[in-house]
Amino acid sequence: MIILGIDPGNYNTGFSCIKINNKQPILLDSGVIKSRKKPDNLNKIYNGLDSLIKKYNPKEIALESSFYGKNPQSLIRLGEVRGVILLLSAKNNIPIYEYTPQQVKNAITGYGWADKEQVMIMVEKIFNKKVKTADESDAIAVAFCHFLNRR
Amino acid sequence: MIILGIDPGNYNTGFSCIKINNKQPILLDSGVIKSRKKPDNLNKIYNGLDSLIKKYNPKEIALESSFYGKNPQSLIRLGEVRGVILLLSAKNNIPIYEYTPQQVKNAITGYGWADKEQVMIMVEKIFNKKVKTADESDAIAVAFCHFLNRR
Repeated sequence: MIILGIDPGNYNTGFSCIKINNKQPILLDSGVIKSRKKPDNLNKIYNGLDSLIKKYNPKEIALESSFYGKNPQSLIRLGEVRGVILLLSAKNNIPIYEYTPQQVKNAITGYGWADKEQVMIMVEKIFNKKVKTADESDAIAVAFCHFLNRR
Repeated sequence: MIILGIDPGNYNTGFSCIKINNKQPILLDSGVIKSRKKPDNLNKIYNGLDSLIKKYNPKEIALESSFYGKNPQSLIRLGEVRGVILLLSAKNNIPIYEYTPQQVKNAITGYGWADKEQVMIMVEKIFNKKVKTADESDAIAVAFCHFLNRR
């Protein structure tokens, strides 16, 4: 059983693929899809995630959903990225499970208001992998959060 | 030259196809894609618009963009629908031209704060077609607005 973790962003979308093996989570892949340039940004996210789905055949998607404290322009842009992810989920018939940043932070650090560095430190400890950005680390953390939640 | 007009909505997405023939606009097709039911709603919009693009091969998309007075939840949902439309535009290499409701209303009635009934009346007059809903009429009006704007 493979979980695809996604942390959607206006410019960087983090992803992770976690395999559950003997009830243990194993990190298969993780990284960031950069999508600064319009109009091709959404197509880049679509193609990037579509390749991951074809390669790893995930059975569930874990999505970090953060709407608070965002201005209308950011909400619209975040909605556009979410639209692409929800479309891929529907097209491939993969259910999506959404988690708030607090749920994700609580799952990986035990504290819902942990900062991004603390999340990165715990991700690196648990999966023994050096992560480069908070987007990547958040995508691993949301997949881990879903792994814990489905037990 | 064919223009695809789109009025995106959370539940109903209006569409229109207008052909420019001897500098005159001719309405080829119009209607509404209903998409109430999750999780397949975005896929329905994607497939519906994709079929229209394949059938009519439009060269430009005219999109009504209305962000004002919407709550965060509505903005996110509208963003999701926009994401699907922007993705189709990028995949098919069709440029998008965005117009505010005021621009659209002004184009079709001469008054930027006209009500929906007035827009419907003018759409029916100009194209001699009975339209069923405001979503359909708005989608025709935005394509007409773009037709006027590109002259």
